[in-house]
Amino acid sequence: MKDILTQAALCKEAAPALSILSAAEKNAALLDIAAALEDHRADILAANALDVSAARESGMTASLLDRLTLTAERVSAMAEGVRQVAALPDPIGEVVTGHTLPNGLEVRQVRVPLGVIGIIFEARPNVTVDAAVLCLKAGNAALLRGGKEAIHSNLALGEIMARALEGRGLPTGCVQVVEDASRQSAQAMMDLTQYLDVLIPRGGRGLIRAVTAGAKVPVIRTGEGVCHVFVDESADLAMAADILVNGKCSRPSVCNAVECVLVHRAVAAEFWKLALPKLAEYHVELRGCPETQVLVPQAVPAKDEDWDSEYGDFILAAKVVEGLDEAVAFINAHGTQHSEAIVTRDLQNARRFQQEVDAAAVYVNASTRFTDGFQFGLGAEIGISTQKMHARGPMGLQALTSTKFLVTGDGQTRW
Amino acid sequence: MKDILTQAALCKEAAPALSILSAAEKNAALLDIAAALEDHRADILAANALDVSAARESGMTASLLDRLTLTAERVSAMAEGVRQVAALPDPIGEVVTGHTLPNGLEVRQVRVPLGVIGIIFEARPNVTVDAAVLCLKAGNAALLRGGKEAIHSNLALGEIMARALEGRGLPTGCVQVVEDASRQSAQAMMDLTQYLDVLIPRGGRGLIRAVTAGAKVPVIRTGEGVCHVFVDESADLAMAADILVNGKCSRPSVCNAVECVLVHRAVAAEFWKLALPKLAEYHVELRGCPETQVLVPQAVPAKDEDWDSEYGDFILAAKVVEGLDEAVAFINAHGTQHSEAIVTRDLQNARRFQQEVDAAAVYVNASTRFTDGFQFGLGAEIGISTQKMHARGPMGLQALTSTKFLVTGDGQTRW
Repeated sequence: MKDILTQAALCKEAAPALSILSAAEKNAALLDIAAALEDHRADILAANALDVSAARESGMTASLLDRLTLTAERVSAMAEGVRQVAALPDPIGEVVTGHTLPNGLEVRQVRVPLGVIGIIFEARPNVTVDAAVLCLKAGNAALLRGGKEAIHSNLALGEIMARALEGRGLPTGCVQVVEDASRQSAQAMMDLTQYLDVLIPRGGRGLIRAVTAGAKVPVIRTGEGVCHVFVDESADLAMAADILVNGKCSRPSVCNAVECVLVHRAVAAEFWKLALPKLAEYHVELRGCPETQVLVPQAVPAKDEDWDSEYGDFILAAKVVEGLDEAVAFINAHGTQHSEAIVTRDLQNARRFQQEVDAAAVYVNASTRFTDGFQFGLGAEIGISTQKMHARGPMGLQALTSTKFLVTGDGQTRW
Repeated sequence: MKDILTQAALCKEAAPALSILSAAEKNAALLDIAAALEDHRADILAANALDVSAARESGMTASLLDRLTLTAERVSAMAEGVRQVAALPDPIGEVVTGHTLPNGLEVRQVRVPLGVIGIIFEARPNVTVDAAVLCLKAGNAALLRGGKEAIHSNLALGEIMARALEGRGLPTGCVQVVEDASRQSAQAMMDLTQYLDVLIPRGGRGLIRAVTAGAKVPVIRTGEGVCHVFVDESADLAMAADILVNGKCSRPSVCNAVECVLVHRAVAAEFWKLALPKLAEYHVELRGCPETQVLVPQAVPAKDEDWDSEYGDFILAAKVVEGLDEAVAFINAHGTQHSEAIVTRDLQNARRFQQEVDAAAVYVNASTRFTDGFQFGLGAEIGISTQKMHARGPMGLQALTSTKFLVTGDGQTRW
């Protein structure tokens, strides 16, 4: 078994060659990876079966087992995803700004790869391929540390990608799947400042918090979402109910799902009459403030921790508020700066909500569920940043790049 | 004396109001600050005199004393600098990208402030004003922790800025000069994740390294510069000598100064004949590799640590290299990813050098001394980033911003 330092060093060594590949060379390698995944479908499924049977024996829950399990169709979908990334425009080499200085110096700021990107993720083996090809397309080497539950699947996928890259004369350090899936290897990655340019955790809240708090390598924090809908006094209440039900019930486990609804006091009674039957269809459990409990007797009393909970489930916190000011203050205090929505007919309130709420995506009269790289037209998504530095919101290929200034002259000096 | 937690909390509280000010409101406050600095010139000089006399007693070196000392002219220059920042375009509110999705949702990515910016700096009191107004212009609150040598000057400047802001009805939390200039307060700032969105160290290598290694708050690493000039085989050697002498001698203490020259073996003898007399005019001490010592007998032998030294002085390391490949590898191993130059007539070598050298600014036939926000036309500079995330190279107002997505619809949901 290669240790993680050896693998990180291979990535670091591969990065310079990778950074100067043309788009054509990168795309050819990606298409080879797509073909290799389909050619080795049987190997992938055999490796995955080992993971699935071990997980079943250890008593993994059905929903996690489903995320872990690969099928022929899922392998095809992976390969198709790789082809889609190959079809995206190459971000590298874009001239971001450029001008000629008064002294004749030509200055161009051009987009370049970050270098080596570390990704720590959990049980879903498709992330291995997904993350690897996004990094490759943006000219970065990738060090991928998946969960130990998926280790056989991940190593098989890594091996297939490595062979495809070698076939194009590229070093296997372009993509390294960490062989040691122990807790120690995740910890070690957080300290690899000499090898990694950035570290991206993908997974649950516990993982993300641990990496954000513990890493010495610069981190891009992603995916924690305590999202709100605020139903304003002037809202179209049927629209508000639709947006809430969509936000809560369409896919409660994802980070852009709604966890808490704030309802203007003046319309709370009427709103709940409309919204309750729709939420009941999905058996949503309500946890309400005292005023909400009066209007919705079936609501259980919300505890303090409910206001900061990412349930990931058919549970909804609910609070009656005085108006926009209280809603904005509550969201800025309890949200995770992910996605926040107001439903209103009032133009000034719409504008104030978008200005004053501090979040990656702020919606007027639309569902928070749209916060997504594909929905926003980025063509791909490596995650949704909930930090303010480097990238914020859905991250496409551009989030995996940096820039440099190229300056060309004919002997200019500055005394 | 207010403790740093109290001051950081004031900044955090002020940030939302500051983030939504119009450009006109911010500029009016900045012009008030400029006027107040001139009106209170006598107070500033009196406070500075306390710092200077204490520093003199403690045996501070002449060059540091000069950086610490304010004069009537220097105060005027500060005020003039504030007026220049007021005259710059406001980065906040810029629509970075925008489009309408197929379902009719309007998505705009707009530029917003980062929030609260912490800056840790050393003896120069003008940084207090400089940093504060750049943060303010970009809608950010600033927590400024200067060196204890300049504490009286910094507090006087902070007080004048606070009064000017109050005069415009703005909270004093917009700018807080840390009253406790102890080592503990700097340490505390590195851990203030609940209050600070970013931390920028400005100063010497020791400070920057300590902050980068120790901070839990996201850091922008700035200003460490071990910069090289590579004299290629085809170089115009007179141009190469000019570029080297300018890079080394025009201002050796700054981060874009040259510390090491790499000379192609085929032209090394001829190059040194040209360059030596020019360097001798500035009494530059040469530290050379064995081959350089043969050509330049007055060079002392370079030790291993010379290849990684930021001298900040009239000292130059020098090495003979085989060609472009060795030069690029040496620079990528020993540089600090700041500014690197090649002097060449060969187009392919120029292109390869710019592509393959991993640095914020890569020059062909020009001096590294141009790496500067003003030179590059950014209108201002908060520092020069030598990291790849968020901002790279000279940082103007845009580096003090983030973005958010504003999404407006008429009831769109996503099932």
